[in-house]
Amino acid sequence: MTHTAMDRFYSVIPAGGIGSRLWPLSRADAPKFLHDLTGSGQTILRDTWDRLAPLAGEQRIMVVTGRAHRAAVEEQLPTLADPNVVLESEPRDSTAAIGLAAAILERREPGVIIGSFAADHVINNQRLFRQAVVEAAAAADAGYIALVGIQPTEPAIGFGYIHTGGATDIAGAPSALAVDSFVEKPDLKTAVRYVAGGDYLWNASMFISRADRLLEEIGRSEPEMLAGLLELAEVWDDPAARGPVVDRVWPALKKIAIDYAVAEPAAAAGRLVVVPGHFDWDDVGDFASLSRLNSGGRKSDLAILGADARVLADASSGIVVSQTKRVISLIGVRDIVVVDTPDALLVTTSENAQRVKAVVDALRLSGSSDVL
Amino acid sequence: MTHTAMDRFYSVIPAGGIGSRLWPLSRADAPKFLHDLTGSGQTILRDTWDRLAPLAGEQRIMVVTGRAHRAAVEEQLPTLADPNVVLESEPRDSTAAIGLAAAILERREPGVIIGSFAADHVINNQRLFRQAVVEAAAAADAGYIALVGIQPTEPAIGFGYIHTGGATDIAGAPSALAVDSFVEKPDLKTAVRYVAGGDYLWNASMFISRADRLLEEIGRSEPEMLAGLLELAEVWDDPAARGPVVDRVWPALKKIAIDYAVAEPAAAAGRLVVVPGHFDWDDVGDFASLSRLNSGGRKSDLAILGADARVLADASSGIVVSQTKRVISLIGVRDIVVVDTPDALLVTTSENAQRVKAVVDALRLSGSSDVL
Repeated sequence: MTHTAMDRFYSVIPAGGIGSRLWPLSRADAPKFLHDLTGSGQTILRDTWDRLAPLAGEQRIMVVTGRAHRAAVEEQLPTLADPNVVLESEPRDSTAAIGLAAAILERREPGVIIGSFAADHVINNQRLFRQAVVEAAAAADAGYIALVGIQPTEPAIGFGYIHTGGATDIAGAPSALAVDSFVEKPDLKTAVRYVAGGDYLWNASMFISRADRLLEEIGRSEPEMLAGLLELAEVWDDPAARGPVVDRVWPALKKIAIDYAVAEPAAAAGRLVVVPGHFDWDDVGDFASLSRLNSGGRKSDLAILGADARVLADASSGIVVSQTKRVISLIGVRDIVVVDTPDALLVTTSENAQRVKAVVDALRLSGSSDVL
Repeated sequence: MTHTAMDRFYSVIPAGGIGSRLWPLSRADAPKFLHDLTGSGQTILRDTWDRLAPLAGEQRIMVVTGRAHRAAVEEQLPTLADPNVVLESEPRDSTAAIGLAAAILERREPGVIIGSFAADHVINNQRLFRQAVVEAAAAADAGYIALVGIQPTEPAIGFGYIHTGGATDIAGAPSALAVDSFVEKPDLKTAVRYVAGGDYLWNASMFISRADRLLEEIGRSEPEMLAGLLELAEVWDDPAARGPVVDRVWPALKKIAIDYAVAEPAAAAGRLVVVPGHFDWDDVGDFASLSRLNSGGRKSDLAILGADARVLADASSGIVVSQTKRVISLIGVRDIVVVDTPDALLVTTSENAQRVKAVVDALRLSGSSDVL
């Protein structure tokens, strides 16, 4: 059973989103997934690819990204098959991106099971990751929309949470749980309660589903979107016909996150389950997260990212991201965030990391879009 | 009497010293005095010149500086008379620098009174400054080594203090006081006591003296230095003879601050007096001082120095010095010091400002002299 499900498995990587909270590292023309955020020596898109390749092979990985990023993505992923590069003419949020992949793949290969994994998350312990995906694929094979949720290790306030319900009885997915509800980023007190209670998981937006079931869920909540996706899929593999349809249909698709279009209604109807993942995971959502990831969790340390970094620090902790060859000297600054790029410099603290997005908005409004 | 003393007055500006505590703004090739540190639109060397010119005229200002700074100094001070540019082949500290000026001027114009004022201090209220100098010149005319000390406005720990003694009875210098002793930078508790007690002044290293008297004091404590200075002065105005004597004599002069060679022994012998100055003064010794100077003393403000600065700050205070055109974004950082230059970046806090010198030393030792 499990074996059969993975034989029909296809990975999808939606590689969109700039990652504004990581400005000025992340930019419109250098989004988060195109950076080495872990010091691994390669981009996290490439890390994602390497993590997914063992699931069903490199030939069964599809990437949905913006036209502007095509060259960079193909450079990062030289073995990405040409038909598996799905280019968005403009961003239409995650339901459209993942839904289009589902529609194209279902048309090519009816009965396919897709697993959608963000291009810009960090995961350690690949074996536990694969184990969770295999269980989720079994649940998908049984007709469920399956999520992989992450067993929390701390009361994080930067993530959404999944409130789990009771056990299910799905063949091949012994640890799958029903989903009671989804909760947005909580305050610290609430997060502490969630983690202590034991029936909350972090929502990592990992969707595993039969493509036809995913499309069916989209159709229930967003019938116009489904119609558009099917129309696009119909012509996608016909180069002559694709262009005009894309130009007409894609820009009209509703911008809605898959969490709202699929996960919440499916959960409410009992058609969604979650498999707890016991691997380390981080969405690297802001510089506090990046700092934590790169300092091995030691708050007293100063993490340094950047191959050419020349940092001299005294009594300082936090993170320095260096994209220049400048000497960076820190004295007596704790939990600091310094991001040094050729045209923009950010200085803040871990505590203020979530506020970076507001600055990006302010820069846009103040006519400084040249550095965004 | 006063009139007579000022008729024989000559200003001397020792323009040496890099100002390591203002790194990376101050550099070996761009020392502190060549920067606009107040947002006045001109360098503080030029501010110093403008402040001294009314004392005895531009033709009676001598600048002692390093050979490497000749072009920059002359560019800043286009009306500086050529014979009044005294170039050091290498730095030999303040006794040699001021002593050489005294020896040259005394030879050219016996009986001259010199006033030595640092090139890189900031003074407000020029009228009160001149008033203090005129009194000090009267004391100098009476044979004293005279200092202008600064009435403290706060318990600063970054300055040396002058412990004043009783009143003197010097014609034309009614506020001149005897000097009991000099004290190095005190701790905060001691500084509070000094300021509360009322008989301490900040030592601004402003020396006013007859040139012959200054040389006499140097000769008492450092007879070899005096011999060297007189030998240099003898040939200084003979271009053909000067070179070989400078090459032989100058590098052999002892490196000693004028405070030790002249001020302390003269004070101990009762030959030194101090005139309290009631003007605002700052030696801009570190970034905390620079921050204070440029924020009008409001701790909640963020001071910004740099003609092309593009700073976007949210809930931040302290100082940003921008020598690049990069966008600098600060979020939630208080009392911060950010100094952004093309090849080096410093991030620290006002509290740690005095530690910048240690970093400069560390950079030198670690082979990063390219940014010093």
